[in-house]
Amino acid sequence: MNGLQTDLYQLTMAAGFFETGKVRERATFELFVRHLPRHREFLVSAGLAQAVDYLLNLSFTGEQVDYIRKLPQFERVSPAFFEYLRAFRFTGDVFAMREGTPFFPGEPILTVRAPLVEAQIPETYLLAMLSFQSMIATKAVRVARAADGRSVVEFGTRRAHSPEAGVLAGRAAYIGGCIGTSNVEAGFRYGIPVFGTAAHSWVMSFPRERAAQEALQKLLGARAAYLIDTYDTVEGARMVASLGKPLWGVRLDSGDLVKLAREVRKILDAAGLPEAKIMASGDLNEEKVRMIVQADAPIDVFGVGTELATSADSPNVAAVYKMSEMEIDGIKRYTFKHSVEKETLPGAKQVFRHAGRDQIACEWECPPILAGGRPAIALLRPVILDGELVEPLPDAASAREHCASSMDSITPGHIVEYSAELRQLAERAADDVMKIRP
Amino acid sequence: MNGLQTDLYQLTMAAGFFETGKVRERATFELFVRHLPRHREFLVSAGLAQAVDYLLNLSFTGEQVDYIRKLPQFERVSPAFFEYLRAFRFTGDVFAMREGTPFFPGEPILTVRAPLVEAQIPETYLLAMLSFQSMIATKAVRVARAADGRSVVEFGTRRAHSPEAGVLAGRAAYIGGCIGTSNVEAGFRYGIPVFGTAAHSWVMSFPRERAAQEALQKLLGARAAYLIDTYDTVEGARMVASLGKPLWGVRLDSGDLVKLAREVRKILDAAGLPEAKIMASGDLNEEKVRMIVQADAPIDVFGVGTELATSADSPNVAAVYKMSEMEIDGIKRYTFKHSVEKETLPGAKQVFRHAGRDQIACEWECPPILAGGRPAIALLRPVILDGELVEPLPDAASAREHCASSMDSITPGHIVEYSAELRQLAERAADDVMKIRP
Repeated sequence: MNGLQTDLYQLTMAAGFFETGKVRERATFELFVRHLPRHREFLVSAGLAQAVDYLLNLSFTGEQVDYIRKLPQFERVSPAFFEYLRAFRFTGDVFAMREGTPFFPGEPILTVRAPLVEAQIPETYLLAMLSFQSMIATKAVRVARAADGRSVVEFGTRRAHSPEAGVLAGRAAYIGGCIGTSNVEAGFRYGIPVFGTAAHSWVMSFPRERAAQEALQKLLGARAAYLIDTYDTVEGARMVASLGKPLWGVRLDSGDLVKLAREVRKILDAAGLPEAKIMASGDLNEEKVRMIVQADAPIDVFGVGTELATSADSPNVAAVYKMSEMEIDGIKRYTFKHSVEKETLPGAKQVFRHAGRDQIACEWECPPILAGGRPAIALLRPVILDGELVEPLPDAASAREHCASSMDSITPGHIVEYSAELRQLAERAADDVMKIRP
Repeated sequence: MNGLQTDLYQLTMAAGFFETGKVRERATFELFVRHLPRHREFLVSAGLAQAVDYLLNLSFTGEQVDYIRKLPQFERVSPAFFEYLRAFRFTGDVFAMREGTPFFPGEPILTVRAPLVEAQIPETYLLAMLSFQSMIATKAVRVARAADGRSVVEFGTRRAHSPEAGVLAGRAAYIGGCIGTSNVEAGFRYGIPVFGTAAHSWVMSFPRERAAQEALQKLLGARAAYLIDTYDTVEGARMVASLGKPLWGVRLDSGDLVKLAREVRKILDAAGLPEAKIMASGDLNEEKVRMIVQADAPIDVFGVGTELATSADSPNVAAVYKMSEMEIDGIKRYTFKHSVEKETLPGAKQVFRHAGRDQIACEWECPPILAGGRPAIALLRPVILDGELVEPLPDAASAREHCASSMDSITPGHIVEYSAELRQLAERAADDVMKIRP
């Protein structure tokens, strides 16, 4: 029932492949980014679990097939194609990097090898899912690094690109290093810790601010995080300080956060509440978090919303999904795009990682052997074989751990190179394409 | 079953309102933008149909209620609250601007008046849905204006912030003036025209480019749009010109589009195909479209993807949802936020529009009478009353027409002002809040 989540040309091409007898020829497609987004030195893969769910459930309802059949683009298509769509399932293989793996341009993060139509139709969905979650996970790594050990919570659902993007942003931000999200659906679906206590409307719903905060304390006890800037932050801090324990702490959401945090800290300490936490929110990003940390402002937790959930300084990723091999009439051919500034390399690939260096190689190559005799790690691993999940995927918490432990292996000078064999294959394929041109 | 699509604090506040007996006190919230996004002179409202669907179906499954109950934040909450959630329905009123209406900062595009909890929980979803679709509809207006009468198709699903954002971007771009989208699900769900024929992988799946294009012609006939840049655009054009009719035309996807379009136009004309169309795509936005149009390049249709579906130059909207009135203990109070740089105005509002001028007024005010005796148009109209849809909402095609006809009423010098009565109310409410401060 998710079969229509694609671009129309995938379905017109599917009809064409069907009509020309190519429907069962096997093709290999690779998903990678052409170049780094601006302001990014690396990317972190995320979204694989949702991509795999999609592939395992890829199908069309009768109503959806009828819709396609009535489109003018399908006037000339034979009835057998629509029967084919009704029974459509993904039967191919998928290799992918684990979620939470840092990656670089040119490195496939997902490879699909399947009968041509089964590999073609998923292009649009896979790109949208993997590039979005990877973009947000990457942004979260940047914000978490800027926080330098202090906690970051993702708060951005309301500014995300649709409610569903908010759910997925919460997941991806967690993988990238946030301690959790405000998005409850993300918590429910993916088992991610959820955070949040009260908004300005809470305070405004009571005749007096004091009554609002007393009610919050009664409700939440040691989890009460008072939002104190509805009328005046410093007076708000004095008021909650006078309520005393139990409390978790306070949240600042406007004004000069460094200055206010210092004043509020003094008020809390003077009231005998040194363990009360200060959270800050309000249009934060990694630059502002870094400045606050460098100023050594007494802020314990950052709530980061809009700029994280939309990756605002770099809101898209140039991810592509390109055919690298195909069996045409039973003969394997290496395929690639030769357009100006949009070249791709032929052949199914593997990515080997060892300290400070990635090698993009042909899939059949042996791993480079490192000093000490250990082979370099192959980042692309089988996920789906013959349409069946190989093993359960790691959950978001495991992906988060994998991301945290993998980031150490990535340094500013990280080298990405092609293997000699892949370079030779590219040259041979370039000769070949000259021969087969019209 | 959509009840968890919200921030956790909406649910903790809901529990708090329930426990303090406020659950049935009626509140009014308004959704508006604080300021224009960068590079924007106006915004266009979109997403109301999905927002209304959400409100009419707002509920929690038993499993979802159990999830909430087990969260540590709900430890102290009484069992009656979870029974309340199980039976939760939206029973309030909604007033909104029609989809496709241009709007400005401070103008509510949606007003919710409902029992407090019913108005509070939807905040997150409403903001994400309306601000995203409005952002994309606005971007589409800009691109369509730059195209100056030539057609624009939305092509950006693969770079959208998740597959679902791609579906909604297709819808919103259509409302803003695109002639359709490549997103099939958007076509299926919302009745939007869908476009697309073939990708580079089509060409690469055949031993020769010519075989690929012949197959496309056979498949699509007069709808065949040949992608001609897989190997070399000009040679690709010559090849399809030699195939002759039937065809729709060609698509260029890389290189110097102005120069290539001229060369390709000559080739098509020389082959007796003056009616064949030229479509261009590849990282386009309103600036590039404007340059192409100003250069008078012979491009008939623009396919615009990434920058449209992500509103890349301005990827979020500072929309907020603020309480403006509330009945506290049966007495109506005007509520507003007094934080630094985040002030809001009290009281439920109406927006009156007449040529070149908007007036934001109190909801009970009479419309200004224009020269000629006609009252100014009230932009906020009832959509849901007592939890029931007032009348079917206009579809995306009607919203698109409304947008096109409304844009004429918006000029660069458009004035937005507050009525005298609203300004007086704001002053009185400011005095009032001073009295009720702790």
